[in-house]
Amino acid sequence: MSRVCNFSAGPAMLPAEVLARAGDEMLDWSGSGMSVMEMSHRGSEFMAIAEQAERDLRELLAIPSGYKVLFLQGGATLQFAQVPMNLLRGKGKADYVVTGEWSKKAVKEANLYCDVAIAASAEDRNFTYAPKKLSVRKDAAYVHYCSNETIGGVEYHSIPEVGDIPLVADASSHFLSRPLDVSKFGLIYAGAQKNAGPAGLTLVIVREDLIGQAQKGTPTVMDYKLQADAGSMLNTPATYAMYIAGLVFKWLKQQGGLVSIEKKNIEKANLLYRFLDSSAFFRNPVAKQDRSRMNVPFTLKDSKLDDAFLKGAAERGMIQLKGHRSVGGMRASIYNAMPLEGVQRLVDYMKDFEARHG
Amino acid sequence: MSRVCNFSAGPAMLPAEVLARAGDEMLDWSGSGMSVMEMSHRGSEFMAIAEQAERDLRELLAIPSGYKVLFLQGGATLQFAQVPMNLLRGKGKADYVVTGEWSKKAVKEANLYCDVAIAASAEDRNFTYAPKKLSVRKDAAYVHYCSNETIGGVEYHSIPEVGDIPLVADASSHFLSRPLDVSKFGLIYAGAQKNAGPAGLTLVIVREDLIGQAQKGTPTVMDYKLQADAGSMLNTPATYAMYIAGLVFKWLKQQGGLVSIEKKNIEKANLLYRFLDSSAFFRNPVAKQDRSRMNVPFTLKDSKLDDAFLKGAAERGMIQLKGHRSVGGMRASIYNAMPLEGVQRLVDYMKDFEARHG
Repeated sequence: MSRVCNFSAGPAMLPAEVLARAGDEMLDWSGSGMSVMEMSHRGSEFMAIAEQAERDLRELLAIPSGYKVLFLQGGATLQFAQVPMNLLRGKGKADYVVTGEWSKKAVKEANLYCDVAIAASAEDRNFTYAPKKLSVRKDAAYVHYCSNETIGGVEYHSIPEVGDIPLVADASSHFLSRPLDVSKFGLIYAGAQKNAGPAGLTLVIVREDLIGQAQKGTPTVMDYKLQADAGSMLNTPATYAMYIAGLVFKWLKQQGGLVSIEKKNIEKANLLYRFLDSSAFFRNPVAKQDRSRMNVPFTLKDSKLDDAFLKGAAERGMIQLKGHRSVGGMRASIYNAMPLEGVQRLVDYMKDFEARHG
Repeated sequence: MSRVCNFSAGPAMLPAEVLARAGDEMLDWSGSGMSVMEMSHRGSEFMAIAEQAERDLRELLAIPSGYKVLFLQGGATLQFAQVPMNLLRGKGKADYVVTGEWSKKAVKEANLYCDVAIAASAEDRNFTYAPKKLSVRKDAAYVHYCSNETIGGVEYHSIPEVGDIPLVADASSHFLSRPLDVSKFGLIYAGAQKNAGPAGLTLVIVREDLIGQAQKGTPTVMDYKLQADAGSMLNTPATYAMYIAGLVFKWLKQQGGLVSIEKKNIEKANLLYRFLDSSAFFRNPVAKQDRSRMNVPFTLKDSKLDDAFLKGAAERGMIQLKGHRSVGGMRASIYNAMPLEGVQRLVDYMKDFEARHG
């Protein structure tokens, strides 16, 4: 068996050690005589797995005690609705920063529930940068932004200033790729399928004082407060996905935690961006200071060569390099589980491709 | 490794063959060089897995062509909200049958969205039977019932008559345990974690003409029509859970399909109920014609012996026999993956326990 270099934007590569352990434990977790998939979510075995996962996540991110950690379902897209349903708190208005496809979707969904104002937009330069200066209404219930745009490859490398208004981040595609000062946020959410585990699990970290005022008509399982009070087990959670996420958290700790993983991620991103900037054939459109370390979109000088590029990459064991259908071109997602060697292999291939076609 | 006999109500036992195959394929699915967990949901490998799963499910249940099959998230409890949000179609009222804990929860949630009338209730006999005669309003948007109450162990062995009003079933805990005439239903939903796969996946089968009129404020990913049009991939679905469900569907086909699995389930249920009825020590309270083949609650003559019973069972490799906290006593859930030998082992132990304590 040879493992491919998978540059998928998500679901994405997972650490081979995590998968190997999950495979070994598939029929018998820790002498229990059953798979984690078969465990009652209220049994002592699974409760221990869930509690350990939360403890490890809290340790990794140094989550302050005034925050609840929720293991939910439905992906970030359900959060686009769940955030306003829970956090409007009767205020009826919320401010959104627009930096690309995902924040546009968040705005569209929020419009179903409240008066939305745009606190900042990067549309003037085709969503190739992260605006730092926000215009926030004093009576907004919260300010929402996407801290890493997976499609456009735009990342906030600092936390925007919003004063006393609770800040909400869709951190899906760079969650756990770097340390994060949770205390600056009202709520952080992330689909797990990039850096935290399998698809079907959504992580939510929320400041306790903001919950408990869900609007009328919020489905019971979508009420953050009720889920927090029930330890994310108001109904059966995505147990196996939680177990895999727990193994990923353990792996991150073994890697030295988020400071250490950030160093590796900087090294990988630098390798790829330096090559892109040195090339007259490949191009990344994002403002240098706002480039994502996780998702690196790039174009070829001649898009007629796209298919040949993808074919050659696949022949060399590198897959899922095709850019999102909404923007075209290429995209290399280089999450935590992508080793430096994988990025090096890609750069070597790009150099070679440029030499042959440039 | 010795596998336990797991009588959990869900998440529950899965076929050992399914788990073994999933374990074998964990690091490399079919020579792809990746785990199914790592696959882009829009890649050709996963699309093939998803399409095959739907084909197999359609074949198993002989689902007519006018029905959509959706692979969703959030569990049956989210469906308690999602059903009225989608199926009220401006009518503002729906009728519910109440046969136990789960249908009570469904009613409570539906009350958030519409005028609910009780079409029938088994409360008069403490939810120990399945009322057949329903009183349905002519202008109700739909009639909802729970076709198998997991906690009370009450199962409808025939489909209630509701005329032209669309019938909606929460079939979670007996889905795929027997053939089902899908054409009699407007919508059928089931949390996967009993007979269909891991927790975190919800299966919905819905008549096409009923969808497309979701009420205002329905989160986009909860709109059946939008999900149907997107092949359940409006956003990233629970990919790994879908893969496991697909393996379970294949296993069911190898067992001879639902007619064959129903025979085995009847045999298992008969073995346990016949013993219960012959015993002066153990007792099941449900009307004989409405007893669930999947979930068999029972009490001991003296509840002071409950702990000793559970302890002795665990020593013999039989776990999760404790009844739901809301009703107490014992419960043996004997889903498709529970072999006849497991039920025989339980009955042997019960006989022995009765001989010693009766």
